[in-house]
Amino acid sequence: MNGKSIDLNCDFGEGYGAYTFGQDAELLQYVTSVNIACGFHAGDPHTMRRAVEMSLAAGTAIGAHPGLPDRLGFGRREMAITAEEAYDFTVYQIGALSAFVRAAGGRLQHVKPHGALYHMANSNSAIAEAIVRAASAAGESLMVYGQSGSLLLEVARREGLAFASEVFADRAYERDGSLMSRNKPGALITDEEQAAAQAVAMVKNGHAVTIDGQRAPIQADTICLHGDGPHAVQFASRIREALIKADIRVEALGKK
Amino acid sequence: MNGKSIDLNCDFGEGYGAYTFGQDAELLQYVTSVNIACGFHAGDPHTMRRAVEMSLAAGTAIGAHPGLPDRLGFGRREMAITAEEAYDFTVYQIGALSAFVRAAGGRLQHVKPHGALYHMANSNSAIAEAIVRAASAAGESLMVYGQSGSLLLEVARREGLAFASEVFADRAYERDGSLMSRNKPGALITDEEQAAAQAVAMVKNGHAVTIDGQRAPIQADTICLHGDGPHAVQFASRIREALIKADIRVEALGKK
Amino acid sequence: MNGKSIDLNCDFGEGYGAYTFGQDAELLQYVTSVNIACGFHAGDPHTMRRAVEMSLAAGTAIGAHPGLPDRLGFGRREMAITAEEAYDFTVYQIGALSAFVRAAGGRLQHVKPHGALYHMANSNSAIAEAIVRAASAAGESLMVYGQSGSLLLEVARREGLAFASEVFADRAYERDGSLMSRNKPGALITDEEQAAAQAVAMVKNGHAVTIDGQRAPIQADTICLHGDGPHAVQFASRIREALIKADIRVEALGKK
Amino acid sequence: MNGKSIDLNCDFGEGYGAYTFGQDAELLQYVTSVNIACGFHAGDPHTMRRAVEMSLAAGTAIGAHPGLPDRLGFGRREMAITAEEAYDFTVYQIGALSAFVRAAGGRLQHVKPHGALYHMANSNSAIAEAIVRAASAAGESLMVYGQSGSLLLEVARREGLAFASEVFADRAYERDGSLMSRNKPGALITDEEQAAAQAVAMVKNGHAVTIDGQRAPIQADTICLHGDGPHAVQFASRIREALIKADIRVEALGKK
Repeated sequence: MNGKSIDLNCDFGEGYGAYTFGQDAELLQYVTSVNIACGFHAGDPHTMRRAVEMSLAAGTAIGAHPGLPDRLGFGRREMAITAEEAYDFTVYQIGALSAFVRAAGGRLQHVKPHGALYHMANSNSAIAEAIVRAASAAGESLMVYGQSGSLLLEVARREGLAFASEVFADRAYERDGSLMSRNKPGALITDEEQAAAQAVAMVKNGHAVTIDGQRAPIQADTICLHGDGPHAVQFASRIREALIKADIRVEALGKK
Repeated sequence: MNGKSIDLNCDFGEGYGAYTFGQDAELLQYVTSVNIACGFHAGDPHTMRRAVEMSLAAGTAIGAHPGLPDRLGFGRREMAITAEEAYDFTVYQIGALSAFVRAAGGRLQHVKPHGALYHMANSNSAIAEAIVRAASAAGESLMVYGQSGSLLLEVARREGLAFASEVFADRAYERDGSLMSRNKPGALITDEEQAAAQAVAMVKNGHAVTIDGQRAPIQADTICLHGDGPHAVQFASRIREALIKADIRVEALGKK
Repeated sequence: MNGKSIDLNCDFGEGYGAYTFGQDAELLQYVTSVNIACGFHAGDPHTMRRAVEMSLAAGTAIGAHPGLPDRLGFGRREMAITAEEAYDFTVYQIGALSAFVRAAGGRLQHVKPHGALYHMANSNSAIAEAIVRAASAAGESLMVYGQSGSLLLEVARREGLAFASEVFADRAYERDGSLMSRNKPGALITDEEQAAAQAVAMVKNGHAVTIDGQRAPIQADTICLHGDGPHAVQFASRIREALIKADIRVEALGKK
Repeated sequence: MNGKSIDLNCDFGEGYGAYTFGQDAELLQYVTSVNIACGFHAGDPHTMRRAVEMSLAAGTAIGAHPGLPDRLGFGRREMAITAEEAYDFTVYQIGALSAFVRAAGGRLQHVKPHGALYHMANSNSAIAEAIVRAASAAGESLMVYGQSGSLLLEVARREGLAFASEVFADRAYERDGSLMSRNKPGALITDEEQAAAQAVAMVKNGHAVTIDGQRAPIQADTICLHGDGPHAVQFASRIREALIKADIRVEALGKK
């Protein structure tokens, strides 16, 4: 089949017990894959089972979203863990989610580290290798989702695992294809139309336009849509609409 | 192959982080199967991986030992959980352990609920059914370990799952084959020779001798050896020795 | 000062990390005392400090709201804890909250157990005694909030602690003053006007009207307003309005 | 009273639920102050109450030993927490322990951060200030225990809090009075006599002898004795004996 296609992913099942988080049900209609929290930074057995059932019913691909063992910090605080700990934490969480997916008759597609673990895997090679080894050890040919241009994807490629290069519609990029730091002005794209245009450009042309009008080369296999924030659902809807209008197929990676 | 045989099991990997519990390494040489804690009442990803590696190296069969989400209470306090929660907790824990077993090239053999969950599964049919459904849903033909004569085994049999009837060498039985309550005098057998004799009698003759000299019919597929307590290792060694001397093969159930 | 008065209390600070719960800020304007979660069933150090600061700024009295160590179950599941554990859990949680109150220049007024601990204290005298002893041991002359007619209040009275008899505007009562079981039809009062009328009647006349038109004697020192649910804020506003209209002073108990 | 004196402190009450840690009871006879874990990195309400009761019975001074919220890592892994979080965590833990001390009729003497929090307070001024502010806010004139020469003590002095300069008998020092890194050969003093001699020299002469025979100036108010490790009790006994033999009074700081 000809033409461009793209996967839209979002974090999912990030509640805990009596707590809810984000707008899971609303967002589900716009994405083609979800990253389900596995009980460390968020999620619990019941929330995970429900999230798996909702995803399978909606036909989205399912990924594990392992995080640091820091529920209080929602997995967003870096912790000085060893590579061995990163491996053990990741195997545990993939295994737990995988059991719910199998029990519901599905198949786990990918693993995407969450929060601080995602960031650590961008720059710390031992952590990146541990996560790739864990994805591989789980023995189900899991694909690795990671930030475009990251060390994590480089390690996955080297180790022969399938991977997906993740981009953001609502973040500005530097000329070298790295994310502009959140501290710099213009780093966050809050205008819906601008974000939608960047999404289309990255998929169609393989680059983003930097803040000073240059082209930043970007490989876009999947776009991360945020599930929290007041305009999350509207943003997701608008980006999806723009992609389709630009003749880009929105579909899970397994269907490529 | 003729003759009687018996499995010896013990709880395993019940440490947590910097904490150790019981005498894992010493006990491993006497048992033929282990029940590994899965991170709820005890255990953590690192402890689980190490426990799996030790068990595979020793050639013992591996079971999941799911417990209630009560690390402070070591899973020993009953909690008013629903059957759905019991199912979700059990699937999660089996899945997490299973990933480490697969990663190490092994196969999970059984599931044995821990502590209060074990006791609840003896008397609460909804909980027993939830655990059996969870063992089944994990999709790996897991065997269910449960107390001899318990509701849990009855449900496992009804649902077509393989199961093992567990007995205790160091607990007195009532005439109907139920465990004598710990509150009654004589309920705990502290004499090594008496415990060894009861182990042999249960396996060889299919009954225990009650405190008033009657025969209590008991199906003994596996004997539970305790890993904590000052004399745990010596007890295990003595019981194993007595069984072998009585021409009973000590071997994992999968080898029957 | 003559005339009737009533305290209005609500649970408060029940978020956890990135999670919010209920409508703290909105409800704060209608109540005269709050029960702040202390980190076991809900709450965390940051949430607690913020809740204390908000309460002091609003001029409401502050109480500790200790719960069972079961964040996943929001402290709503009964657990088979000992009286000693109930004491230790309660002292710990009162102490932790108390430090934030003192640091902010305030004074802790009361303790009200949460969820399953509240219910256990209604019927289990050892648990009730443990909570009263804990309130007393904290050494700050804490008042005990408990359900009208409960064992907890009886123990508090016997031990010489000040206490407040708590009633519900949105729950039907039996003739003996006990709460009608939630399972019975009519147990939950969902009509705003009916709830407001019951609130006024309990304070003014010392009784509720049962479902069959009888009078149930009730001592009403404080009315519990719920902070979650879609109509929580509107309900609270309406009940407060009705009380004031009936010439009942709405004020914290310490001001009586 | 003339002559030199020294406080001997050790971490205490570091068990959790069914888990024990270190050799609390044995060590208690040699120390004059204890640092009790407060439920974050170790400890739980029951363990804390027991530790407080044991300390009061033995006549040792009691300090709070707050740690990072990382029980799995025993508070030894650095976490990227904010100064505000350090403050909130510390107030919470001091408050919880303080309630048990008051309930038992005692008085909290000091606060000593644990593990990674201790190290972060040595080098991160915002964290050091947060801990000092927390100690101060608790409103009980708590003394701050910190590493000799650390930022934490500097901040405590600046803010007008009493403090104690902590030294180690079993660690080598650099010429500038800083601890030699554990990675360097000779950093750990494993010989009992050498450790005892260093303890005496630091107290008596105000300096340690470096590995190359130089004098490193050290203020020694309290010596930290380790409670875990196979020779912990023997080491403690030997060091105490050597100090007494050198006419140094071994006593809590409050008694100076």
